[in-house]
Amino acid sequence: MSKPTIEKITVIGGGSTYTPELIDGFIQHEPDLQVDEIALYDIDEERLNIVGGMAQRQVQYAELDTKVTLNLDRPKAVDGAKFVLSSMRIGHMAARILDEKIPLKYNVIGQETTGPGGTFKAFRTIPVTLDIAKDMEKYAPDAWYINFTNPSGIMTEAILKHTNLNVVGLCNNPINTIAAMAEAFHVEPKDVFLEWMGLNHVNWVRKVYIKGEDVTQQLIDNLEKMVDIEEMPKIDPDLVRTLGVMPTYYLQYYYFHPQRLAEAKAAEKSRGQVVLEVEKELLKKYADPNVMIKPPELAQRGGARYSEAAVNLIMSLMLDRRDVQIVVARNGTSIPDLDPDVSVEVPCVVGAHGVTPLSMGRLPESIRALCQHAKAWESATVKAAVSGSRRDAYLAMLQNPLVPDYPTAVKLVDEMLEAHKQYLPQFFKK
Amino acid sequence: MSKPTIEKITVIGGGSTYTPELIDGFIQHEPDLQVDEIALYDIDEERLNIVGGMAQRQVQYAELDTKVTLNLDRPKAVDGAKFVLSSMRIGHMAARILDEKIPLKYNVIGQETTGPGGTFKAFRTIPVTLDIAKDMEKYAPDAWYINFTNPSGIMTEAILKHTNLNVVGLCNNPINTIAAMAEAFHVEPKDVFLEWMGLNHVNWVRKVYIKGEDVTQQLIDNLEKMVDIEEMPKIDPDLVRTLGVMPTYYLQYYYFHPQRLAEAKAAEKSRGQVVLEVEKELLKKYADPNVMIKPPELAQRGGARYSEAAVNLIMSLMLDRRDVQIVVARNGTSIPDLDPDVSVEVPCVVGAHGVTPLSMGRLPESIRALCQHAKAWESATVKAAVSGSRRDAYLAMLQNPLVPDYPTAVKLVDEMLEAHKQYLPQFFKK
Amino acid sequence: MSKPTIEKITVIGGGSTYTPELIDGFIQHEPDLQVDEIALYDIDEERLNIVGGMAQRQVQYAELDTKVTLNLDRPKAVDGAKFVLSSMRIGHMAARILDEKIPLKYNVIGQETTGPGGTFKAFRTIPVTLDIAKDMEKYAPDAWYINFTNPSGIMTEAILKHTNLNVVGLCNNPINTIAAMAEAFHVEPKDVFLEWMGLNHVNWVRKVYIKGEDVTQQLIDNLEKMVDIEEMPKIDPDLVRTLGVMPTYYLQYYYFHPQRLAEAKAAEKSRGQVVLEVEKELLKKYADPNVMIKPPELAQRGGARYSEAAVNLIMSLMLDRRDVQIVVARNGTSIPDLDPDVSVEVPCVVGAHGVTPLSMGRLPESIRALCQHAKAWESATVKAAVSGSRRDAYLAMLQNPLVPDYPTAVKLVDEMLEAHKQYLPQFFKK
Amino acid sequence: MSKPTIEKITVIGGGSTYTPELIDGFIQHEPDLQVDEIALYDIDEERLNIVGGMAQRQVQYAELDTKVTLNLDRPKAVDGAKFVLSSMRIGHMAARILDEKIPLKYNVIGQETTGPGGTFKAFRTIPVTLDIAKDMEKYAPDAWYINFTNPSGIMTEAILKHTNLNVVGLCNNPINTIAAMAEAFHVEPKDVFLEWMGLNHVNWVRKVYIKGEDVTQQLIDNLEKMVDIEEMPKIDPDLVRTLGVMPTYYLQYYYFHPQRLAEAKAAEKSRGQVVLEVEKELLKKYADPNVMIKPPELAQRGGARYSEAAVNLIMSLMLDRRDVQIVVARNGTSIPDLDPDVSVEVPCVVGAHGVTPLSMGRLPESIRALCQHAKAWESATVKAAVSGSRRDAYLAMLQNPLVPDYPTAVKLVDEMLEAHKQYLPQFFKK
Repeated sequence: MSKPTIEKITVIGGGSTYTPELIDGFIQHEPDLQVDEIALYDIDEERLNIVGGMAQRQVQYAELDTKVTLNLDRPKAVDGAKFVLSSMRIGHMAARILDEKIPLKYNVIGQETTGPGGTFKAFRTIPVTLDIAKDMEKYAPDAWYINFTNPSGIMTEAILKHTNLNVVGLCNNPINTIAAMAEAFHVEPKDVFLEWMGLNHVNWVRKVYIKGEDVTQQLIDNLEKMVDIEEMPKIDPDLVRTLGVMPTYYLQYYYFHPQRLAEAKAAEKSRGQVVLEVEKELLKKYADPNVMIKPPELAQRGGARYSEAAVNLIMSLMLDRRDVQIVVARNGTSIPDLDPDVSVEVPCVVGAHGVTPLSMGRLPESIRALCQHAKAWESATVKAAVSGSRRDAYLAMLQNPLVPDYPTAVKLVDEMLEAHKQYLPQFFKK
Repeated sequence: MSKPTIEKITVIGGGSTYTPELIDGFIQHEPDLQVDEIALYDIDEERLNIVGGMAQRQVQYAELDTKVTLNLDRPKAVDGAKFVLSSMRIGHMAARILDEKIPLKYNVIGQETTGPGGTFKAFRTIPVTLDIAKDMEKYAPDAWYINFTNPSGIMTEAILKHTNLNVVGLCNNPINTIAAMAEAFHVEPKDVFLEWMGLNHVNWVRKVYIKGEDVTQQLIDNLEKMVDIEEMPKIDPDLVRTLGVMPTYYLQYYYFHPQRLAEAKAAEKSRGQVVLEVEKELLKKYADPNVMIKPPELAQRGGARYSEAAVNLIMSLMLDRRDVQIVVARNGTSIPDLDPDVSVEVPCVVGAHGVTPLSMGRLPESIRALCQHAKAWESATVKAAVSGSRRDAYLAMLQNPLVPDYPTAVKLVDEMLEAHKQYLPQFFKK
Repeated sequence: MSKPTIEKITVIGGGSTYTPELIDGFIQHEPDLQVDEIALYDIDEERLNIVGGMAQRQVQYAELDTKVTLNLDRPKAVDGAKFVLSSMRIGHMAARILDEKIPLKYNVIGQETTGPGGTFKAFRTIPVTLDIAKDMEKYAPDAWYINFTNPSGIMTEAILKHTNLNVVGLCNNPINTIAAMAEAFHVEPKDVFLEWMGLNHVNWVRKVYIKGEDVTQQLIDNLEKMVDIEEMPKIDPDLVRTLGVMPTYYLQYYYFHPQRLAEAKAAEKSRGQVVLEVEKELLKKYADPNVMIKPPELAQRGGARYSEAAVNLIMSLMLDRRDVQIVVARNGTSIPDLDPDVSVEVPCVVGAHGVTPLSMGRLPESIRALCQHAKAWESATVKAAVSGSRRDAYLAMLQNPLVPDYPTAVKLVDEMLEAHKQYLPQFFKK
Repeated sequence: MSKPTIEKITVIGGGSTYTPELIDGFIQHEPDLQVDEIALYDIDEERLNIVGGMAQRQVQYAELDTKVTLNLDRPKAVDGAKFVLSSMRIGHMAARILDEKIPLKYNVIGQETTGPGGTFKAFRTIPVTLDIAKDMEKYAPDAWYINFTNPSGIMTEAILKHTNLNVVGLCNNPINTIAAMAEAFHVEPKDVFLEWMGLNHVNWVRKVYIKGEDVTQQLIDNLEKMVDIEEMPKIDPDLVRTLGVMPTYYLQYYYFHPQRLAEAKAAEKSRGQVVLEVEKELLKKYADPNVMIKPPELAQRGGARYSEAAVNLIMSLMLDRRDVQIVVARNGTSIPDLDPDVSVEVPCVVGAHGVTPLSMGRLPESIRALCQHAKAWESATVKAAVSGSRRDAYLAMLQNPLVPDYPTAVKLVDEMLEAHKQYLPQFFKK
């Protein structure tokens, strides 16, 4: 039997330094999956050439029967795609650095996914995404849009509410946590089943099952012994015991905001600045025609197992595997404490028919209100990004769990709108 | 690697004529699964010996490394079981025949799953089942209870509400419908994904996907061409077009009650009487020491693919396969039009952790009220079976969709309570 | 202080034989309320003249400072109205008689509010009502539309869903039941508080409070002694005890359908035929210039306390009394077992701001499914009346609790559509 | 007709400096209501004598036919009461001062109703209240418990969840806001209807109606002109415009926490210390046998219109008036964004049957999450107060909207538990 074939995959933001990671993913899965074309699209020609060149060498070196094309014309890039993967950064790393730096003045951590930075990254990215959706509705109406772009929960919700696309949001946080649990309990990742509940980057593990056995309490009792497991969320065990469920990595910004804020203020460089330097080094490598495989430095960029998650998802969508994966999808009735039309990150059955969440039931009381609070912020962010109303932006910012009061919300919005003005035309139309 | 092993499976109602079918299922799956002991339990010693003898010969003939034991002592039969399969008929076929005959006097079809017969079969069976549950809580607390006993939705709900058992209700209706759809669209059953919604025997297919493609409308438009497909529900295509979703077999009793009633009245023998004769023939065969494999007449008994469904379920529960199967489980938030603690029949992820329904969302308006109506009857039946209150029984009967008015409900209850008195001690305690 | 004044009240269907009852209501409340104009509108000029003449004499005889105008021009009739009262019968009594007679052929009682008759009365009346709504949006946008037209729950839901009018549905059933309870417990009606739940004509009394004391059980225990109380619902006490709550009058058609059907078949004349004769007599009286007050025969027409209910409602809407009245309104969150946008009949606070239902909570389990079933029929009826789709009409009819099966639903719809063809243009457009 | 008579009203915390205000309320309503006995109960004999003496002189001076009794024996005080009014302060003003002062160390405002102070006031008061409930279940089972004790929402929820009492929570915030709106729009308070939503001290006005006209937008547009209206919530108009609904007074602690915190830190004395001095002066007055009427200084104590609210409530409960009052009651289905069994502050129909909330519908999105967040804190506080678990206390504190992180929650709980140790035996049992 011939192996399954995807005629075309398009990567929006193909000039991202992550692209070689993604290419490597397809190389690793070459025995299972034939990809005829990977169309890299970017608006930054120089970067597209450097990263695209690297991608072409990777494919060539691995003797893959895949054509990597470089595209500056978006409709053409999208035309005929079966999957469109998006990993964009409108305003580049410079915008991220502003997202991180400005809030510090107001004693708020910027945080590009769960904080004010996330609000503004969404404000910049949603209009572009809705434009891409129009291209897809025209040139690739049945394609799957797989969103990697942060803040993934907000982006996915915007697409669900404002387009007709088939969309799934993806994050490596679940797959990494599964790996950590497997390591903790000395089993394979496939032996781990997590009752993962909440939103992208605002989620908790209600139950951990190892080969069907509920080991949640055992995990909570032994967290101190697990600090050496790389991807195990590093959350104060006392907090975990108070909550009775396991918060994941990004929740530290909510549960330990003042500490994270102090660290951010004390840091010489913001995360964006660090990444900027990593990227410079990476791009230097990518530009070197002798580099044929993804360089080890890419690991520092973050994003472990991203390509694994992506290929898993694509395989199940294409091959109708109907297995359970933790992705970002429309809530429906999965978590009745949140509205049906919002995005959530929960275990879903993934098949060729689409993505169906499992019925997860009510959020435990210890985490319910924070999850509702964060979702209110996310949904208000989508609304403001589309309306371009400054008052909607105040309301979105006010509802971010990190923002302590209304005056701070107003100041943050006013300064950040001004700082990102060129990327936010919707807020400055006459 | 050695194949997975189940130390012990107990069959309650092991003297059932279905047992050789079940044994045959394990024989078919011998390459995948080792079963050390199948403990047949029954209260009818003669039948246990006949059917059990047959089962022992089947196993021997197939050279299975499985011990089939015959048990009249229930605690012993249950002790150490990993799975307890239940297929009981309290009051034997004679009681079923009464369930079918008495309602005809009042112009109601008896129907042992969706009609007054179902109410009384549940009244007889629930107390016995709660007794079995006590044995299991003591002797096999972690075992899975797999209910085949009709009415499966009501039985499963009783166990969910009144015991701590791990329970799944099973029916061959979903697996048969999947087979029919595969035949209709010339694909393998694994290529079919059904949005199956409702209760056991009161269910509808909202969407049919073939390899991920939604073919529902195509199916509805071409139903007339599919009458030759054996397991395709034989429902008036015009009704299907009015509903916009596909009702399954047993719904004919609700949508076409007067016709089914007229046929039942005209019939020389009730279904129970027919089955009684089939069983006599079967038991004769089983008693013949030269019969080593399940006889072809067993097919007439009904229950096609039952053993396949059972083995599938057991394999996923044991091997943590986390695949999607349509079974009877606690609703949770799967269908928000029904209460969380009731039983529903929906696609579920089945793994070693248990059975988690998919989030199916609201019932379409065209079927919602009938489903709620039938569930009210089911839940009221559970309540009356446990309380032993005659007034609760009136209320349950009144809420059956086939019962046209209150006086009929009262007469049905009064006559049927009297007729089954010996099996209904809870209604006759002082 | 001068008494409150309503400049104009318009009566749609002003030629109704009920009109003198309504006029009498305003006469009785003359000390509390000044009405400057009562504009009677009808399409039947002869009847308008007879009934309108009677109304003018009533007012004159009572020395009311109220002008009664007769109108054949609807926009003019509606222009400037503060309240528009509707009491229409499209197709006159002849149509009602068909609604009652045709279903009997199929062993279904016609019943113009809870049965197939209600479906067809709604089909005929909803399009006309939506037309009136357009006039009101133009000529009296802030007026209150008070619906007396049967089936009142369906009519009110149609207006709520398809217009912007301020609407309340009104029925005399609640006020009559309150009167009955007052009589039963020897108190004033104002001392009675009912937890009245459900839909118009499909409702139950969950609790009866007399001066704050819960007397529900006392009532249920003593129903046999209350048969002489005129307006006490005449429902088999045994059924009441089974349900644990008190069904009201019209529920006999659901709980005792076969008996009511047998009576209807045995009756020489249908209710419509009886009323037709009563009306003939009434119109003769109304035509008599010597008759100055409403004739005693009007009481046989039904509709006791209608004018009292209407004046109460108008007074509270106008004077911002914010008292509790049982009316038909948008459910919102009053009964969570029904959708927010449907109509329900529950206790509401009535003030100048509008009509706000009390939070009634879940329907008791003993009545929940029937109420959901009847509401599914009502909402499907609204949908079909507006869409004009025959298939939608089948679906509506199928969901009526009196209709036993799909073939009957189809036959009823086909024959009744044909019979009422001239009043149902929406179903016969090309 | 003789006027309505209450045989006995008991005041728990009768030694409160508010008592003369309450007595004055009964004096003002003497024409409408006869109270035979007001039983003041307190554990502080000296204060009871001073305040009780004052109350006795008030009654005597007003020539009321009411006996004021002083009680140190609680069962006796409660015995036969029709209404039990509670206004307690366990640990006296000294405890309040600690509640206010300790949190300032951790940059959190103490706030005895919406902040950590509220948590600890509830921890101290709930066990005592549940004890009182036991007395009432024995000696006054049908009495109404009217809770004035802060935090009123939490106290009412504790009583609803853990006793069988008839309870209503009362606050003067709604009645004061109604007075402010009446002043703003130059009408009588009775002409104002507010869609008041949320929890006690965490509430918003969704709509303001004046004589039935919706003036909400007009109010929001003109807030700057209303600063001189005493009881108009003093909330930044820009915030009101962003929210689209009107937050009431106490929400400033959430929306403007840093500013309120800075003021509290800068203040020479905490609110408790100020009140302590006011109370000293008041007690001096009360002790003066020549003072016969409530002294004007009492106004500074806060609590304007408290006695008016109390008498209104009592009159409607007793006289079955079924008018609309804004009180604290069980949510039921009033606000579906909150659980049915929690307390809310919404418009309710108050009659002899009890207190029934209006169906208020969903909270607007702009305020929903904060209300859910505050309710999570309230419910967690009730849980911890009853369980006496330190971990439950951490969880409650973590969920207070003012608490920025988990370490602060832990420190607050640890220090405050220690500081109030003598009043918190449930947390220190072995």
